[in-house]
Amino acid sequence: MRPVYLDANATTPVDPDVLATMLPFFTEHFGNPSSPHGFGAVVAAAVKRARGQLQSLLGAESDQEIIFTSGGTESDTTAILSALATQEGRNELIVSAVEHPAVLALAQDLAKRAGVVVHVIPVDGRGRLDIDAYEKVLGRQTALVSIMWANNETGTIFPVERLAAMAHEAGALFHTDAVQAVGKIAMDLQSGAIDMLSLSGHKLHGPKGIGALYVRRGVPFQPLIRGGRQERGRRSGTENVPAIVGLGKAAELAAFHLYDEQTRVRELRDHLEAGVLAAIDKCIVTGDVDNRLPNTSNIAFDGVEGEAIVHLLSRDGVAVSSGSACSSGGMDASHVIRAMRLPFTAAHGAVRFSLSRDNEKADVDRLIEIFPDIIEELRAVSPFWRKARQPAKPQERLYA
Amino acid sequence: MRPVYLDANATTPVDPDVLATMLPFFTEHFGNPSSPHGFGAVVAAAVKRARGQLQSLLGAESDQEIIFTSGGTESDTTAILSALATQEGRNELIVSAVEHPAVLALAQDLAKRAGVVVHVIPVDGRGRLDIDAYEKVLGRQTALVSIMWANNETGTIFPVERLAAMAHEAGALFHTDAVQAVGKIAMDLQSGAIDMLSLSGHKLHGPKGIGALYVRRGVPFQPLIRGGRQERGRRSGTENVPAIVGLGKAAELAAFHLYDEQTRVRELRDHLEAGVLAAIDKCIVTGDVDNRLPNTSNIAFDGVEGEAIVHLLSRDGVAVSSGSACSSGGMDASHVIRAMRLPFTAAHGAVRFSLSRDNEKADVDRLIEIFPDIIEELRAVSPFWRKARQPAKPQERLYA
Repeated sequence: MRPVYLDANATTPVDPDVLATMLPFFTEHFGNPSSPHGFGAVVAAAVKRARGQLQSLLGAESDQEIIFTSGGTESDTTAILSALATQEGRNELIVSAVEHPAVLALAQDLAKRAGVVVHVIPVDGRGRLDIDAYEKVLGRQTALVSIMWANNETGTIFPVERLAAMAHEAGALFHTDAVQAVGKIAMDLQSGAIDMLSLSGHKLHGPKGIGALYVRRGVPFQPLIRGGRQERGRRSGTENVPAIVGLGKAAELAAFHLYDEQTRVRELRDHLEAGVLAAIDKCIVTGDVDNRLPNTSNIAFDGVEGEAIVHLLSRDGVAVSSGSACSSGGMDASHVIRAMRLPFTAAHGAVRFSLSRDNEKADVDRLIEIFPDIIEELRAVSPFWRKARQPAKPQERLYA
Repeated sequence: MRPVYLDANATTPVDPDVLATMLPFFTEHFGNPSSPHGFGAVVAAAVKRARGQLQSLLGAESDQEIIFTSGGTESDTTAILSALATQEGRNELIVSAVEHPAVLALAQDLAKRAGVVVHVIPVDGRGRLDIDAYEKVLGRQTALVSIMWANNETGTIFPVERLAAMAHEAGALFHTDAVQAVGKIAMDLQSGAIDMLSLSGHKLHGPKGIGALYVRRGVPFQPLIRGGRQERGRRSGTENVPAIVGLGKAAELAAFHLYDEQTRVRELRDHLEAGVLAAIDKCIVTGDVDNRLPNTSNIAFDGVEGEAIVHLLSRDGVAVSSGSACSSGGMDASHVIRAMRLPFTAAHGAVRFSLSRDNEKADVDRLIEIFPDIIEELRAVSPFWRKARQPAKPQERLYA
């Protein structure tokens, strides 16, 4: 039986067309684009083309606003450290409670080691940002706001353009981690207010180890990695040419498939969600269901561990992701799920289903076929489930 | 006519065996190694194997001493910033005058923006480090010494083990940029004193966009890129699996070809050098000719511009590199050549020939066949050459 991959927010396979585009640059066109001889020239032209393909997907004004990096995490790190270094007299950073660890871990470290004041904006039970709390902390001390475009676990989309405009009113820069959003929803950075944006190749059927940081023209910038002055001095190190060419092609294909993502993939996701909710009791879709990525569904199952669900589904050839992360000292619900303050017994049972254009209806049908038995198997042995079967507590009303 | 590539120190093509090893990890085995399901497990095992292949090439004690990065520049940056952050009460950095820009540009920035005291150790006319000057600045304030294993332009090998032992006597850490040395000379880090070492995939027939930082067990460390805690928290960001697997295979092949590098490639290099010196007058081999990489020859030609040589050779399908870099505001001899204080008219005519196991005798013969005419063509129109034809000045004695 063909394995079923429903974990596209973790990573995606490289599209065959992307790989075909990359291949000549490993061997035939292997030159260093900085070399002045013929081996370098053909390669430099290919890098330039890829920059234009990304510009087009993002709706950026110029291809010079694209800086190639090693991935989303490096892009996030570069943006945040750059803003703090260039925004003189401002040492506050605003992030949401549900950012990716690439943003949160750095923010924590900056608070601890560099005296940066970090404001973490909460979300409500549906994963929506508390705009009042955001407005309250925005001010003359704010160097940067870094709030993701869409959440990786729930798919919840944040109103980044509005948030960016508010940041500008306070004289702050605005960065968004758009690793999960790029290629899934349309973008037009040129017309908006976002100053910096991070993206990653392997989330959109491009290769791993490559990403980009968009930096709007005129935004002050300071590099994270200095040296041979590649990328106009903004990111040094020999260009990862095959991956850059692959990311460019992936961007072109993402633009081509955007309609499919918004229609067929969304329908598959809705089919999955409806099927699971119909077959399994005591489960709830988390996040902002009316305003989320078309490919993502995060469902919390009362009385079971998400990790256990992932393992049993994997045994049957279905790949999904747990909303909980194994941290040292025991299992904790993920920071995203905790931020939404779900009832305890459900928070630990959150599972992320994330689809892509590679999925077919048969994949979803297979999941719906095997999933109820798995949940039943797990609940039969779960102390949390038996406890939940006691007379109803107030939190149970959530499932009414 | 087959193009002749004599610029292996700039970059190398990916070995076909390396590419074949990488391919399944773009598509079939595309999983995220951090994923707990089956798609992740096979990938995590491949990453582990690659770590062992690198450990073996370096002679490291443990595969856990290997941290995968996006390349040599990121490795250098990580090592230097880590040492400065962890060596409390010490804020001095020692580098050589001929380091790669990845080290020098960062050092300059740290001196300017972070109050780090940077000592730049000069080299002599043969490119050898001034050990007395090094000893003089080593002290209680030294956080880190960062001196390359072998120079990228001249191939000169530095006595890094001795320099590392001296650094330890002063309580300092020792890092070496070994991007040009790994795969060309044997290494046994386990028995030595080097604390950290940077390497790059694409210099040893591996892919671009991947490198590693060796950090000896027990050496204090602080990450440059934080987030999802990949690489045991030492370098976050989804692992670049195909490139990691490729770097592992490239390391295995480099170990296999090390003897070839030391014998056949060295003989080719010596054949090239002898042929050029016999056919062209007023040229000099730069660097420490008795103690250099087996594949590298840097020759300075009096009265011509290195850049012009590169372009005319490229016209005839031969790729080499100039020892001079085009910096803003005009042509300057490279910092490596300037550090050796060659006579002005020769410094501008430095050309680097760097070979690899891909080269054959026919490549070298082709160069020797066409090169004298090119030099003659350039000298015929060079004002520097006509000046040099005036009665001998003291510096001319160098060519006696």
